[in-house]
Amino acid sequence: MDELYDKLVKYSKKDYYPMHMPGHKRNTSMLSMENPYAIDITEIPGFDNLHQPENILRVLSERISRIYHSNKAFPLVNGSTAGLLAGISAATYRGDKVLVARNCHKAVYHAISMKQLKPVYIYPQMAEQIPINCGISPEKIEEALIKNPDIKLIIITSPTYEGVVSDIRRIADIAHRYKAVLLVDEAHGAHFGFHDGFPKSAVTLGADLVIQSLHKTLPAFTQTAVLHSNLPELNRRIRKYLSVYQSSSPSYLLMAGIDRCIRLIEEQGKCLFDTYYARLALFYRSMEQLRNLKLLTGDIRGNYGVYDWDPSKITVFTSNTSWNGHQLGEHLREKYHIVVEMESRDYILGMTSICDTEEGLERFTKALLSIDRELDNYNQGKEKKPAGNASFARPVMQRYPYEALEHGTEVIQLEDSCGRICADFISMYPPGTPLLVSGERIERDFIDFITRAIEDGFTVTGLSGGGKEEIEVMI
Amino acid sequence: MDELYDKLVKYSKKDYYPMHMPGHKRNTSMLSMENPYAIDITEIPGFDNLHQPENILRVLSERISRIYHSNKAFPLVNGSTAGLLAGISAATYRGDKVLVARNCHKAVYHAISMKQLKPVYIYPQMAEQIPINCGISPEKIEEALIKNPDIKLIIITSPTYEGVVSDIRRIADIAHRYKAVLLVDEAHGAHFGFHDGFPKSAVTLGADLVIQSLHKTLPAFTQTAVLHSNLPELNRRIRKYLSVYQSSSPSYLLMAGIDRCIRLIEEQGKCLFDTYYARLALFYRSMEQLRNLKLLTGDIRGNYGVYDWDPSKITVFTSNTSWNGHQLGEHLREKYHIVVEMESRDYILGMTSICDTEEGLERFTKALLSIDRELDNYNQGKEKKPAGNASFARPVMQRYPYEALEHGTEVIQLEDSCGRICADFISMYPPGTPLLVSGERIERDFIDFITRAIEDGFTVTGLSGGGKEEIEVMI
Repeated sequence: MDELYDKLVKYSKKDYYPMHMPGHKRNTSMLSMENPYAIDITEIPGFDNLHQPENILRVLSERISRIYHSNKAFPLVNGSTAGLLAGISAATYRGDKVLVARNCHKAVYHAISMKQLKPVYIYPQMAEQIPINCGISPEKIEEALIKNPDIKLIIITSPTYEGVVSDIRRIADIAHRYKAVLLVDEAHGAHFGFHDGFPKSAVTLGADLVIQSLHKTLPAFTQTAVLHSNLPELNRRIRKYLSVYQSSSPSYLLMAGIDRCIRLIEEQGKCLFDTYYARLALFYRSMEQLRNLKLLTGDIRGNYGVYDWDPSKITVFTSNTSWNGHQLGEHLREKYHIVVEMESRDYILGMTSICDTEEGLERFTKALLSIDRELDNYNQGKEKKPAGNASFARPVMQRYPYEALEHGTEVIQLEDSCGRICADFISMYPPGTPLLVSGERIERDFIDFITRAIEDGFTVTGLSGGGKEEIEVMI
Repeated sequence: MDELYDKLVKYSKKDYYPMHMPGHKRNTSMLSMENPYAIDITEIPGFDNLHQPENILRVLSERISRIYHSNKAFPLVNGSTAGLLAGISAATYRGDKVLVARNCHKAVYHAISMKQLKPVYIYPQMAEQIPINCGISPEKIEEALIKNPDIKLIIITSPTYEGVVSDIRRIADIAHRYKAVLLVDEAHGAHFGFHDGFPKSAVTLGADLVIQSLHKTLPAFTQTAVLHSNLPELNRRIRKYLSVYQSSSPSYLLMAGIDRCIRLIEEQGKCLFDTYYARLALFYRSMEQLRNLKLLTGDIRGNYGVYDWDPSKITVFTSNTSWNGHQLGEHLREKYHIVVEMESRDYILGMTSICDTEEGLERFTKALLSIDRELDNYNQGKEKKPAGNASFARPVMQRYPYEALEHGTEVIQLEDSCGRICADFISMYPPGTPLLVSGERIERDFIDFITRAIEDGFTVTGLSGGGKEEIEVMI
């Protein structure tokens, strides 16, 4: 069996095209770097300390806040994970009540556990006619704040994995009216604000703390991110928590990658985004020929209005075909050597960036059109695959998320766990949003949903056992 | 002003020789890597998920535990910091009492804060005749355990920054007799156990959890490390906390660097360590000519016995000369283009590894011998520099370390802070071991010590203000 580095090198020589992160898309004709061993240093004289930047890393931070128009930017080498942990920790005191969009990333729940916060959840509505979540409704947020005037912090994810954007300006106004801090997990929106074809960043729409993954939608190395703070009074606490959650030996390699990413935007951003957007527009135009597959093209409506959308995310629904998303993804990978970011039950998700090549997007276009034609035949001959348990009832919180970490737990068969209290975070990966949170009761429909997902070949994290048939529960 | 990446590339072209970490020593004739953008991927099919490894990353973990003889190895991409946080968190429940060597790394104190642990401190003794700390005395540990039978976890650092090694076998025996878990921060000992000339690793001497920085003394990228667990019953909790403290998008670049480091040890370890040790032996032999500077060569004695020592660390004392360590370091850098790991008041510290070149160690040898001859003249003409306040009384814990994070604080002049309770961790960097811990009372002799350190040009972290003249205290 190959070892990791060899396997990565071999893979890099193959012709698989990445419709997934990182945003540099392994585009080596656009990006290259010195032998990394030559530039991987430590805090030697002439350089700087990320945890107390006074020199070249302070300049880097200032350059980042300049292009994003934030008050202060903290470059991160432990991903958005560190930004979410530090931002939430800095904005709260132990035991505070927080309002949390239920589709937040696992790191948000981890921060809630570490700080023993009391979450009040707000659920995004399902969109009309398409099986994805809408954004978060400002009205629902206001309702929650009226009901819980002691909420100190609001945590929402915008854009969602599929690119659905919430109305940050209105949400920020409401948050501030009720004296709550607004933190936006904009992990998938680091490219926002650089071109009119994409949404504006929450940084410029009134959010107080905004976390962006640089590696997801921009050309930076995996595990790099930025935390923007528009609340100077929190910066001291933010820095303190970042020094908790990030290595005391931060990687100059990752930081050099951040520098190069920012510099690319500074120097060629306008031109690169113009080209990128034109290519995307062409892609979406070509997709108008689809007869079986269906593309998300905005117009995301829920009970509470219409939501903005980020066209960088290419969501292809299989709902009207005999295939599920997993099958479409597999077909794209095996026949066309195109690897997508995510395969869900009802759709696949492709990610794009300024580093996508014309050839890459063309290959994706041709592949989808060709598969769509094939599906004419499939759809005629075969029955539509039954959808199965596509969802389960909203879980009930029996204990606070942190409690399972501080009490006895045991691992039992998933099948026997009905009625017990979950002691871990159960997610489908990607994107890693918990379906069941530690402290919540396990219900029959959840067991059925997860069992089905495993059978269908989806990656479920947080379970145990070889075939993932076990679950950790509180005693 | 150059930007970061350019500055790193420029620096890599200069002839500065690193007597500091990372352990790959920027030795590009020995180590190279594909364009990093080509191999920086995400969790795509065929690869693996660090947080739930089942494939190539599980193999990597097994290879690591094989060469270190540990029960289970967790490779880390957020440094030893993540290993310390996760190990301590996994081995304790909120509010537990822990025994902590006072010279532990800041991350240990962070873990104590996050888990609201109650620390009992044990101080290493000063060595006889040389101004460095000894190891931790097993007798002192037993005394503390008798006095505090409810101690759940013992946390010690071995080797120290200067390479002083504690008697892990005896300490582990004592720990287990009193039903405590023993965690050893072996961040500076990832090279232990591969050659008889270096100490054995705590992993094989009875420690339960051992954290090693791969980048410090082995050829791996900065920010990579490994957590070894010899307590399978803790592994589930360890994995859980690692998923808290490490990015959900772990860097394949850093992981590839871990793979290459392990492979080098697997395939060429014996030969590389033989050569390395022979070069070190030659270096130490040449140093016997020193007349003014003094080298640490083992024989570290304290009140409680003699301590083992790691010759990979080159500690050069300036105590008998008119220079302090800072001056020696500066001279080496400016005149000989040799950059040391650390400059202390009384000594400099150089780090070595299997990637040191013959030329590099020769240059260091010649530089030290030449400076030593120069010092003959200096020492004759000038008075020995007064040592100043070389230490301060042991601080008194008034509040638990976590309390400052959850209460109001203010930033005041360091000069006016006598008698107040410190609300941050004040360290000299490197190595980043807190001199004053959050929750401890600030005394006059501490203020004098720190003021003097700043004046002498040492890097102090945890203070505020431009000239670092401010300190955060609890209200």
